[in-house]
Formats: sequence, structure tokens, C-alpha cells
Amino acid sequence: MRILVSNCNTTEAMTAAICEQAAAAARPGTQIVPLTPSWGPESCESWYDSFLSAAAVLESVRAVAEPFDALVMAGFGEHGRQGARELLDVPVVDITEAAAHLACLLGDRYAVVTSLARTAPIIEESLRATGTWERCGGVYATGIPVLGLEDDVSETSAQFAVQARRAVAGGADVVVLGCAGLSGLHRELVATLDVPVVDGVAAAVGLAETLHGLGLSTSKVAGYAAPPAKRRVVPGGPPSSGGVA
Amino acid sequence: MRILVSNCNTTEAMTAAICEQAAAAARPGTQIVPLTPSWGPESCESWYDSFLSAAAVLESVRAVAEPFDALVMAGFGEHGRQGARELLDVPVVDITEAAAHLACLLGDRYAVVTSLARTAPIIEESLRATGTWERCGGVYATGIPVLGLEDDVSETSAQFAVQARRAVAGGADVVVLGCAGLSGLHRELVATLDVPVVDGVAAAVGLAETLHGLGLSTSKVAGYAAPPAKRRVVPGGPPSSGGVA
Amino acid sequence: MRILVSNCNTTEAMTAAICEQAAAAARPGTQIVPLTPSWGPESCESWYDSFLSAAAVLESVRAVAEPFDALVMAGFGEHGRQGARELLDVPVVDITEAAAHLACLLGDRYAVVTSLARTAPIIEESLRATGTWERCGGVYATGIPVLGLEDDVSETSAQFAVQARRAVAGGADVVVLGCAGLSGLHRELVATLDVPVVDGVAAAVGLAETLHGLGLSTSKVAGYAAPPAKRRVVPGGPPSSGGVA
Amino acid sequence: MRILVSNCNTTEAMTAAICEQAAAAARPGTQIVPLTPSWGPESCESWYDSFLSAAAVLESVRAVAEPFDALVMAGFGEHGRQGARELLDVPVVDITEAAAHLACLLGDRYAVVTSLARTAPIIEESLRATGTWERCGGVYATGIPVLGLEDDVSETSAQFAVQARRAVAGGADVVVLGCAGLSGLHRELVATLDVPVVDGVAAAVGLAETLHGLGLSTSKVAGYAAPPAKRRVVPGGPPSSGGVA
Amino acid sequence: MRILVSNCNTTEAMTAAICEQAAAAARPGTQIVPLTPSWGPESCESWYDSFLSAAAVLESVRAVAEPFDALVMAGFGEHGRQGARELLDVPVVDITEAAAHLACLLGDRYAVVTSLARTAPIIEESLRATGTWERCGGVYATGIPVLGLEDDVSETSAQFAVQARRAVAGGADVVVLGCAGLSGLHRELVATLDVPVVDGVAAAVGLAETLHGLGLSTSKVAGYAAPPAKRRVVPGGPPSSGGVA
Amino acid sequence: MRILVSNCNTTEAMTAAICEQAAAAARPGTQIVPLTPSWGPESCESWYDSFLSAAAVLESVRAVAEPFDALVMAGFGEHGRQGARELLDVPVVDITEAAAHLACLLGDRYAVVTSLARTAPIIEESLRATGTWERCGGVYATGIPVLGLEDDVSETSAQFAVQARRAVAGGADVVVLGCAGLSGLHRELVATLDVPVVDGVAAAVGLAETLHGLGLSTSKVAGYAAPPAKRRVVPGGPPSSGGVA
Repeated sequence: MRILVSNCNTTEAMTAAICEQAAAAARPGTQIVPLTPSWGPESCESWYDSFLSAAAVLESVRAVAEPFDALVMAGFGEHGRQGARELLDVPVVDITEAAAHLACLLGDRYAVVTSLARTAPIIEESLRATGTWERCGGVYATGIPVLGLEDDVSETSAQFAVQARRAVAGGADVVVLGCAGLSGLHRELVATLDVPVVDGVAAAVGLAETLHGLGLSTSKVAGYAAPPAKRRVVPGGPPSSGGVA
Repeated sequence: MRILVSNCNTTEAMTAAICEQAAAAARPGTQIVPLTPSWGPESCESWYDSFLSAAAVLESVRAVAEPFDALVMAGFGEHGRQGARELLDVPVVDITEAAAHLACLLGDRYAVVTSLARTAPIIEESLRATGTWERCGGVYATGIPVLGLEDDVSETSAQFAVQARRAVAGGADVVVLGCAGLSGLHRELVATLDVPVVDGVAAAVGLAETLHGLGLSTSKVAGYAAPPAKRRVVPGGPPSSGGVA
Repeated sequence: MRILVSNCNTTEAMTAAICEQAAAAARPGTQIVPLTPSWGPESCESWYDSFLSAAAVLESVRAVAEPFDALVMAGFGEHGRQGARELLDVPVVDITEAAAHLACLLGDRYAVVTSLARTAPIIEESLRATGTWERCGGVYATGIPVLGLEDDVSETSAQFAVQARRAVAGGADVVVLGCAGLSGLHRELVATLDVPVVDGVAAAVGLAETLHGLGLSTSKVAGYAAPPAKRRVVPGGPPSSGGVA
Repeated sequence: MRILVSNCNTTEAMTAAICEQAAAAARPGTQIVPLTPSWGPESCESWYDSFLSAAAVLESVRAVAEPFDALVMAGFGEHGRQGARELLDVPVVDITEAAAHLACLLGDRYAVVTSLARTAPIIEESLRATGTWERCGGVYATGIPVLGLEDDVSETSAQFAVQARRAVAGGADVVVLGCAGLSGLHRELVATLDVPVVDGVAAAVGLAETLHGLGLSTSKVAGYAAPPAKRRVVPGGPPSSGGVA
Repeated sequence: MRILVSNCNTTEAMTAAICEQAAAAARPGTQIVPLTPSWGPESCESWYDSFLSAAAVLESVRAVAEPFDALVMAGFGEHGRQGARELLDVPVVDITEAAAHLACLLGDRYAVVTSLARTAPIIEESLRATGTWERCGGVYATGIPVLGLEDDVSETSAQFAVQARRAVAGGADVVVLGCAGLSGLHRELVATLDVPVVDGVAAAVGLAETLHGLGLSTSKVAGYAAPPAKRRVVPGGPPSSGGVA
Repeated sequence: MRILVSNCNTTEAMTAAICEQAAAAARPGTQIVPLTPSWGPESCESWYDSFLSAAAVLESVRAVAEPFDALVMAGFGEHGRQGARELLDVPVVDITEAAAHLACLLGDRYAVVTSLARTAPIIEESLRATGTWERCGGVYATGIPVLGLEDDVSETSAQFAVQARRAVAGGADVVVLGCAGLSGLHRELVATLDVPVVDGVAAAVGLAETLHGLGLSTSKVAGYAAPPAKRRVVPGGPPSSGGVA
């Protein structure tokens, strides 16, 4: 099967790193198709970034010409997944929800460790929408900006471990990595911590493969039916006057 | 004071109708400044529309050169208000939250009557974010598309009244009009129903005036601080490399 | 318009201070009509005080002969507002709910800073009834009794600032002043803290003006219809055998 | 032991009927001491009635000279119990909470059947405060006023049975009688329905006896400590300048 | 009346201690009938223990030949009570729910102090099922294994007091003893702490007596009807092919 | 990998059918190892059955000599999964939670359609423990006993379709099949309904494969650590005096 994996920001290096993670998690025979949005922020660290990213990713997904069997949306805590569910007939799995759902199978309460504290309310809203917020023991922030997470992976890992231990002391028994494309960090944390560490990209790939394998996709009888045909002026292109599906 | 009132879609006639409503509700001395986003959907009736609209409105607000004292966001149930709170130092009031908060002062349980059923989950998410969802007795849909609401105001009003009465029979005692720019419909419903009918545009103008009058605006110590400076490629313009505030 | 502003206790000096706050917040043309209940406690600091106050305030409101256009109930966390909504046809705004609803427009999570710790559960119940409790980051107490709050405004302000900073450290980004009639304290806190500080009296006046301006008042179709006519023996007067409205 | 049983209204015949119910439920050796408040409404059917009643009952309890070992408050859904917990050192049991707690031991979901629909939100608030609201399958109303419940017990019983069956059809498996002093009605319903029917007065007497027998009473370390000493002008008497306990 | 009191584990000495507690709490005329399950764990300290215990206790209850009027299930936080409600026509009271419901009558928020931290999620699930979890201020653990609780009652008591004080500092005003059969510990804690300390065994006996006295028992119209007749292979006996009631 | 798939009841034919479903869903290379508990009920349709089943399944799992890489527990709504998480080091996936988590990726609100109405509260409790209850639109029952579900698959399918359509009319957009081992029924429903139909056995196999593939298993730092070593008398065997892991 072919899984389209969309980065939430315009940084190509992050798309590459995310798709490397995705490929490492995928089964033999699964092909990972990378997608970097053609506009939007270089990283998502605010509500403004997240809304900009949602529109840019949705437009970029619409513009993909080649067929694919599932979409994995790789922006931790970012907006947009419900829109993709409307636009597509294939399964859509966001890494935030993927990580949360798998984490619920591994322990009693999961915690998220992420970059900047200001993104915690955005992540919380995304987790609330999954329905698993009551299983969440909190969102912990290291204070490291997204684009600085790979500057010194050892230092980043040390800071993530500090927050993960705070979370465990506070009652969590599973840690979710609150960012994407950081397989080095994930490896170091797995080696450091004695609790399961869930990477959303790998989780989403596994869930997309499972849904595809079971022939399951988004329900189209209610809120996720294709959007009504209408005139939409979309950035960087002529107005679309037809339907969108 | 000057209140910037942003429509969520590109339909100029709706912007005009919304601003007429806003002006009718405003105190003497308040000036209404209309804003139609330069791109996006002609009406919002899906998650996809709503995310597209959020980005378009935020970019359009950023491009406003003239000063203003508050922003009223006139898209019922649409995304974006948290982003505007980050971008601006003046108060931001979304018509969904405005209607919900005022409705809580008028009865025990409010209900929303809106256009298409498919938008109910979007409106629900927006109301949940206000914190008043437990005061909401449900979102009722007439099945009339947004751009058809004014085709026959009497018929539209009759359909809204049917749903409003269902809501009251189900326990609601206040009705919120789940769309913007329909002062004729509002007037007819007020005349028809024996419960308070809250129009979000008027509510938001009143709240914006009150916040401005009390010298209150968005907290900047946490999640609504100005977004970090970074490179963002924004539709229809050169990349922005500076901060956004 | 004329706003009746009821103090929750019998201390005339507090009524005067509250009405001064109200007048400072009111628009030109709004007249503030003070009301001190003729019986009840000199301050409200317990469930017992709060229930005594509710009855006394409701009886005092019923006894007001002159017409008024709205009622503002100025007892932070005190009981009674639903009763006033039954008794009156004009809008009723309690300062607790007013502060909570406005605070929700200014940040992600508000906290209340108040006098004695023992009143926290009473305030919590009042906030739960508004529907905004999930937006509340807690009720913090300074330990200063109500009638001692003005003994040394600088010291009181220092203690409130200590609690407000604890609240912000705990995740709140908006502070609600959990008492009424303390404009000096409010001014000092606004100057001291870098988060919005919401005063319930001012908030309630603004909301009452807005509701009145929009022609909105309490729904009468359900729980807030006028109480049934019956015999009620009311303190300090002959039994009432007629209806109450 | 001696249990003080307070009616919530001034109707002596109801006090007598309530105390008859209480006595029938009490163990040998328990003495029931009736208390009718000296002022307040003749029945409670509104928020206004309930607040008036709360103050009147608390003042009447304070005026009781003879010793007692527990207080049972017999007003279904009415306010005041937290105030009584502050004023007294002996256990306080309200019939609303008593019925709800016992009902939770008898089935999966209980429903309340009561007099007027307008009291449902008041009862709901009282049940929410018990913490058992999520076990409640709803409040159903017969539309019969409190003082008319005994006009024709067979007809009243038939109406209560209709509502009880609606509740069971809606998922409840236990019925709580949402009023006090109606032992005839209770007997008829027990004979008619095939689900447990809980009478709050009997439940409260049983719980008061149990608490007393186990040497348990209200915690005084926090919100239920005796109210602070202060000047309170109480209806029908000279101002009280001392403490209240 | 005769109350069957079932221990959750196979330790006879604990059954004896529990029944001593039960007898001390019972009214004159109530007879306590002890039941030790014939198989299962010697103490319950894990989900595995709790599920093993639930089956063992239910089978042991089914095997009781002599008549009884109520069942008290004495395993704090353990599973099984819903099964017993199906199997029996007499009232069933679990000590966890009994303690929680009585605690709600004594303060604003109760806390549980128990043995091992690992049992906290099991206790939490049991309390959630009562519907009173929102009144619970947390489950605190001393780290002492169940079978070690009586090794040194003074030391155990000291450790429980430490945790109880933490709970009170965290906002609880009532303490629930999260284990059974420890009357010595209960006495020491009552003497040490200034908050009510609720023992579940005594609470359950009181509630069982009250339900029996009022003629109330489990509703049989829905989820607690007798289990369908079917073939069940039960441990240590021949298959049961008939119904179970 | 080898997945142990445990039936919750003693009916061998159901074990075979469940394992057929599991094998059909599994990836190439996954081996399904069937497990029928040696005691317990022949079907689970009550709390009593469920508790009996939980103990029997856990003992049967402990007795499995051959190695396996994951456990799938195939009893819809039945107890026991937390115990298995303690006993094993490999991933444990219950079909109830598996179906619920996957369903959350496919729509806005899922509904369960099951056999007897009396099992709805048991299923509800199991779903609440997953954390996804707020995404559940209800549990609908056909009234067909478990062992009668295959008597006439067309009729069973028709009844399930009736309930599924009621659920969709009530707002659900995804249907979860609330029983195991019915691949014929699943096929018919998929062909009949226009919403996704999730089979828990297939879902659990997919999730078990994903967890295993990602090297993730149950957290052992808190509530799911191996149960303490102690004496446990287990049915049909000599007492176990050692640890259990």
C-alpha cells in the first residue's frame, strides 16, 4: 500500500526525517510518499501557525495527483484532520490521535512531552477531540523550540527525560513523544526511560496499515461527507468552482 | 471605538449584512470596519471550509493597515479565534462564544439553530472550547445551505422556528441563531418565539465594547503571546521572515 | 438606563463602594441605584451567610418601588441569582457569572482570588452553575476576612498578588477578583500583575448594559417563570398572599 | 436518639405527615422532633421559594432550644443543607441526598419523579452537589402542585406511576419520590411499580441513625466549620452580634 | 436480621477481624454471618487478585445454604458487587461504596488511605462506578502490604496518619479507611485525626440494616435480573446446568 | 509472531470461529493460537458470567506453556484485561477497547450493537475504562442471546441492521459489532449498511501486530507490574505459593 505522509510545516528536512521514521515503522510492501506543504510556517508553535498549517496541508493534499491508500498527518497537536477526512475516501490518521490511542493500550495514564509550553493548550484541544483526554496525565514542555530540537540530540533527550520523569512522578505510566521526525530522540528516550515511549509517526503508520488491511475508512454518512461544491478561492491558484472530492 | 468585523467567507454581500447587524447593535460612537477575506470559501459548511477560512481570515486581519480597537469574528462555529488572540493586542470576540456566554445569562439551557446538519460537530467543538457546552441543549439544523438562507426569509424563518420549538420541547429555554448577517431572520424569530433569541454578531459587538470600555484585553503571559518570529510563506505574498505581532 | 445594584450584606459602606465601582464602569447615561438589604449578615463568609443573604436580597429587591432596567447582584459567590430571575422581567447579572464569562474571552484559564479559604466551595458551586468551571484554574484564598480587606489596601493587594502569582504558576492566565467594592485593590493589582484582572462589578454592569441594549432578558418559558402565587410569610412584614411578580 | 426533622415550608400538616413518615421508618428508641419554620413559603416550588426556605429553616433550627442528635432536612431539592452543617455539630442529612445515595445501592440508574416541571433544575442542582448526578436518569414531573398532591392520592399515584414508567423506559431502574410527607403515595407506588421506590424521609432517617450510631458527624476542618462570629440581622428578632455555633 | 459478610480473600483471621468490626457496628438483633471464600488469593493487591477474588466470592456466596437478609462485601476496591446483585434478592452493600456514600454526607471531599499504591487505579474504578468520584480528593497509599497492616498497628497508624494529613492538606475533609478488618487502626486514627474517619465495614452494615429496615432491595427490572440459566463450569464442583437464582 | 487469542467462554465452537476471524485479519506470518478457558460460563451475558469468565481466562492464560507474543482477549465487554496486563510482559489487547479505538479514527461517534440489553451496562463500564465513552453514541441491543446469534444469520443480521440504523439516526456514524466470532454476520452487515462496521477481533489482531511491530508493551512501572508473590488457591489445581509472573 502507499501511505501519503504530510509534514505540517515547510521544512523539507523535517519531512525527510518524518518519512524515515514512517518507513522504519512500516511493514514490508508499504510505500511512504512524502508531502511538504508548499506554503505555511517553517514550524508550528502557535495557534496561528496551526491554522495556517491546516489550510496549507489540506490544499497540498488536494493537489496530490498520484493515488495513495491512506494519509498520515504528521504534525503533533496541529489542526486539520477532520478536513482531510472530508476530502478523502481513504483512511486518515493524525499522529496525535494515533499516539494517544496506542498509549491507552499500554498503561493507565499517558503523558505528552513536547517542545514549547505555549503549545500545550493546542495539544490539549487535539487530545480532547480524540476522546482520550481523561486518560492523559498532562502535557509537559521542555521549552526547546521545534527547529532547535535536533541541535543537540543528547541535550534534547536529557530535557525530555527530565519532563518524562516529572510526568511519571505525577502518575503517568506511558510517555508520548509530542513532536515528529525525531527518531534519534526516540531511540535515546527508549534507552533511558523504563516506561513505553510512543512515537506518533510510527503509531499512525501502524494504524493506517491496520485500517487499510481491514478495509475500513472514514464514515461518509454524516460530518465527514465530501464538502459541498462551491466557489473557493485557494491560495496560489485559480478559484475552484466545482466540488472538492 | 473602532471594531473590525471579519466575515468568515468571501461573499461581500454577507459582510455587508453582518456589518449592518453590527452597526445596529453598536453604541453611538462605535465605528464598524468591515473585513472580507481576500481568499477562502464563499460560505463555510464543512471542516475543510472552516480551516481554509481560519487561515484566510487571520492573514486578512494581519493585512489590515488602519488601527482598530477590537476584532469581532463573524463566522458561527468557525475556527480561528485563538490565532487572532495571539496576533492582536486588542480584544477578540468570536460570535459563537459571544452568543453562548450571553445566552447563559438568560436561561438555564440554550440551543443553537443553524443551517446544515453537517456543521453541528464543528459548532459543538467551538462551543466546547468556550467551556459552556454543558449549558447547551443541542445544535439543531434546518437543512438550508448558508447561501440559501436569504432566498426566502419567511420560509427560512419558518424552518428555524420549527427547529427552535423542537429545542424548547427538548428542554432549552434560550435560542442562539447559528449563523451571521441575517437581521431579517432574527427579527422574524423574535416576533415568532416566546424565548430569547440571541444573535451572535450583536452579542459580540456588545462584549467587545464592554471589554474595551473596561480596558481588558487578551492575556499575553501564556498561550496567547505573540507567535514566535519565523519564516512563514503566506498565500499571495512574499515570505514573511520577521515576527508577526 | 437604571441598574439596581444590590449588595449581598448589610454594610452600607460596602454598598457605597460597590456602586462607585459600578458607576465608574457604566456608560454615560446609565444610572446606578444602590440597594442594601435591610437584614442579613454584615458580610458573607459561609454557606449560612450566603443563604441568609439570598433571602434578604430577594426580599429587598421585591420591596424596591422605583422602576429599574436591570439588576446587578454584587456578592461574589453568593446565592440568589436564579430567584431574582424568577421575580423580575428585566435582566439579572450576578458578578460571579459576569466575571467568569468575560474572563473566558481573555485567556485560556481563569483563577479566582478571594478572601477566606472556607468560601472556596461556595464560589466553586456558583461557578459550576455558570457552566464555565472547566475553564477555571482554581479558587485561591488570601485568608483575609471580607471586612478586613480595606484595613490596609497595600497589604491586601500584596497578599492578593501572591495568590494571583500562584494561580498563574499553576496555569491560569486571567485573574478574577473574588470580592466586590474594592476598586483600590483592583487598581493596585492591575498595576502589579501582567495578566488581565477582572472585576465582577464592572463586568456585570457592562453585561447588563449589553443585554438591555439588545432587548434581551430572562427566558420565562421554563424554570424562570414568575413563582406561583401562594402564601409566603416574609420577614418583617405581613404575610403575602398574592403572587410575587 | 432524637432526630430533629425540619419541614422546608410553613404548612403544619405537611410537617406532621413528614414526621409520621420519619417515625414509621425510625428504629425503636429513636424520637422524631418536628420543626416547622416560623416563616417562609407554604410550599417550595421555585428558586425564590427555595432560597426563602433555606434562610427560614436555618433560623428556625438555630432557635431550637432542646438538644437533638441529628437533623433531617425534609425539603426535596431545597437549599440549605451546607448551612446546617456549619451551624451544627451533629449529623445533617437532607432527604434529597439521602434518597440519591441509597438509590445508588439499589440499581444502575435512578430517576426522580416530582411535582412541577419548573423545579427540575433546582433538584438537578441539588443532586449534582451530592456527586451522584451521573447515576441519575432524569427528573420527571407530574405537573401537580405540592399542595395538591394529596387532594386525590389515587390520581396523584396514577400520575406518578405514568412518569415512573417513562423513566424506566428511558433506562432508570430505581425511582426516587421527589417530595416529602406522602406515605400514602409511597405505599401505592410500591404496590404498583416493579422497581424500588425510595422515599427520602425514610432514607434520611436511616442514614442519620447510622451516622449517629457510628459516631460520625460533619467534618469541621474546612468549609463546614462554624460560621465566623459577626453581626447578623435576623428576621423577627434583635441583631445577633456573637458567633453562631 | 442476618447479614452475610464476605471477606474477599482466603485469610480466615481477616474474616474474623472483619466480622468483629461488623458486629461492633451492628444494631442489637443483627446477626453477622462470616464467609471466607474457599479459594482465591490470601489478600487482594492487584487486578489479578481482584478478578480471582470476585469469582471466588460469588461462587462462595452461591454455596451458602442458610438464609440471610443482606450481603456485605468486605473487600475495599475489589470487584464483584454487581454480580452479587444479580445472584441475590436481598440487598448487597460493598464496603467501598458504603464508605463513599456516607463520606459524602460528612464533608465536601473525601480521600481514601490504603495499603499499596498499585491498588489505587482499582479503587478509583470502583469509586467511579459509585458515581461519587467527583467528590473524591484522591487515593493515598502507605506502601504497607495488606497482610503486613497488623504487624505493628502503631506504625501502621502513623503511616496512615501521614497520608491522611497529606490528603487534608490537598483539600479533603473526610478520610475513608481503604481496607477492612482493622478496628485497632480505625480507633487509633479516630483518636489522632481531627476529621471524620469512615470505616467501610461499619458503613456497609449500617446501610444494609437501613435498606433491610425500609424493605428496599436491588432492582430486578434491568441489569441486575437473575443471570440467564446456562451451563457454567464452576471451580471445584460439577457443572451447573440450571439457572442460578 | 504468535498471538494467543482467548475466548471468554467455554464454547469451543466460538473459539474456533473467533480464531478464524483473527486469522482472516492477520498479516502473513502471524500465527493465531486459540485458547478456550477450561471452566467458566458457556457464554457471557451477565456481570456474574463476566467475573467468572475473567478469573477463568486469567487462570487459563497463566497455564499456557508455549510462548506467545501478544494476547488478544475476545470477550466483548467482559472483564479481565487489566489482570492480563499484570500477568504478561507481552502486549494485551481486548476486543472491546480495540474496536472503540479504531472506531474513533473512522467517524465522529460510534455505537455498539450487541446481543442482550442487560449487558449494556457491562459494555458501558468497559468502554468508560478505555477513555472513549464520550465518543460513544450508545449501546443498542437486539435481544438475541449469544448462543442464538448464529441460529439464523440472516435474521440476526436483519436485527443488527435495525439497531444499527437506530444508532445512526441517533447520531452515530460508525458501528461496532458488540460480540465476537461472527464473521458471517459482519460480512452481511458490511454489505447492508453504509457506515463502517468494526469487528473487535480483527481490530485487536491489527493493534496487537502494530504494538508488537513497534516493540511496545504494557508499562510495568505502576499499576500493571507483576502481581505480588503470595499464596493463591486457584481452581482445579494445588495452591500457588510463588509469584505469578
